[in-house]
Amino acid sequence: MASPEIETLTEALSRLPGLGPRSARRAVLHLIKRREAALAPLRAALEAVEARLTSCGICGNVDTSDPCGICRDPRRDARALCVVEEVADLWALDRAKLFPGRFHVLGGRLSALDGVRPEDLSIDLLMRRLEAGGIDEVVLAMNATLEGQTTAHYIADRIERMPVRVTQLAHGLPVGGELDYLDEGTIAQALRARRPVA
Amino acid sequence: MASPEIETLTEALSRLPGLGPRSARRAVLHLIKRREAALAPLRAALEAVEARLTSCGICGNVDTSDPCGICRDPRRDARALCVVEEVADLWALDRAKLFPGRFHVLGGRLSALDGVRPEDLSIDLLMRRLEAGGIDEVVLAMNATLEGQTTAHYIADRIERMPVRVTQLAHGLPVGGELDYLDEGTIAQALRARRPVA
Ligand SMILES: [Zn+2]
Ligand SMILES: [Zn+2]
Repeated sequence: MASPEIETLTEALSRLPGLGPRSARRAVLHLIKRREAALAPLRAALEAVEARLTSCGICGNVDTSDPCGICRDPRRDARALCVVEEVADLWALDRAKLFPGRFHVLGGRLSALDGVRPEDLSIDLLMRRLEAGGIDEVVLAMNATLEGQTTAHYIADRIERMPVRVTQLAHGLPVGGELDYLDEGTIAQALRARRPVA
Repeated sequence: MASPEIETLTEALSRLPGLGPRSARRAVLHLIKRREAALAPLRAALEAVEARLTSCGICGNVDTSDPCGICRDPRRDARALCVVEEVADLWALDRAKLFPGRFHVLGGRLSALDGVRPEDLSIDLLMRRLEAGGIDEVVLAMNATLEGQTTAHYIADRIERMPVRVTQLAHGLPVGGELDYLDEGTIAQALRARRPVA
């Protein structure tokens, strides 16, 4: 019954994680009843992010600047590097404010099933960061899944002869758990109990 | 840690009903990982609605055209008019696809507490629609709240001497219930069992 424009907006919103068709309709009503206070600010915020969205050439984070805010932050400990599968994992770890160093986003995990090989991930870029020196510790913060752990082992092997300490998150992570879904307490515990890779 | 633009977007999204801070962050990640497939379409949809959003001069519905899609729809029964408090109620009733007629949005309910008087609602406009003739039945679809029912009685009194049948939704509505929060089955039952105002 609504106009094509309103239907299109409802559909676009209902595709967001966490919003179904019903809550999308409520969100649209909220927006159209508050054209100046809600609709215009949300449209402007999307516009600003869309215009400036970029991928960090150093770490692979997605941000509105390159290098990203984390890589440019002088208060970050440049000697510690946390390697994660996805940008979502970086955000989950950073939200917990527990890791004082920088990050490296692989852009996925090794997967025979999905045909993801080492060259499909930013592993070579990681090696070049390590070879450039100045990094003392690499924390492998892969998901506690089979593919995540395979990826961690592969990277640990490649780093083995470098003069860096390689650790991984303690297996306080529930089996099959994905970082981005865990509460901060669990992530904190796993990070505190991180241990050298055998 | 995110850039100001990303923080602003997260905040704008977290103000939508149904999205808290955590799901807003997930939504932002979803959007920035899908710049072309999700971010741009949502931004464009908001832009289109914002540019064309208007209030229907006939019924008070919010739409991207004036008259609105419902008032312009020739398949709608122009002899039946359903009076509701808010645009959200119109949408809730229309979603159930049970009322074949048109609507009239009052823009609120009479309230001594909030100082809402008859002249603050579009009741005079409703009277002019009825005086223009061609309407056989007016369904008063106010919320089953004290203020909603006070409003319904006030309007029923004003219509009393006009040659129209005045009905109201059956009190299958739960006491204190607001239309916009009810499932379609409950609304359907209440609409089917509507009865003449005593
Ligand atoms: Zn970066
Ligand atoms: Zn209309």
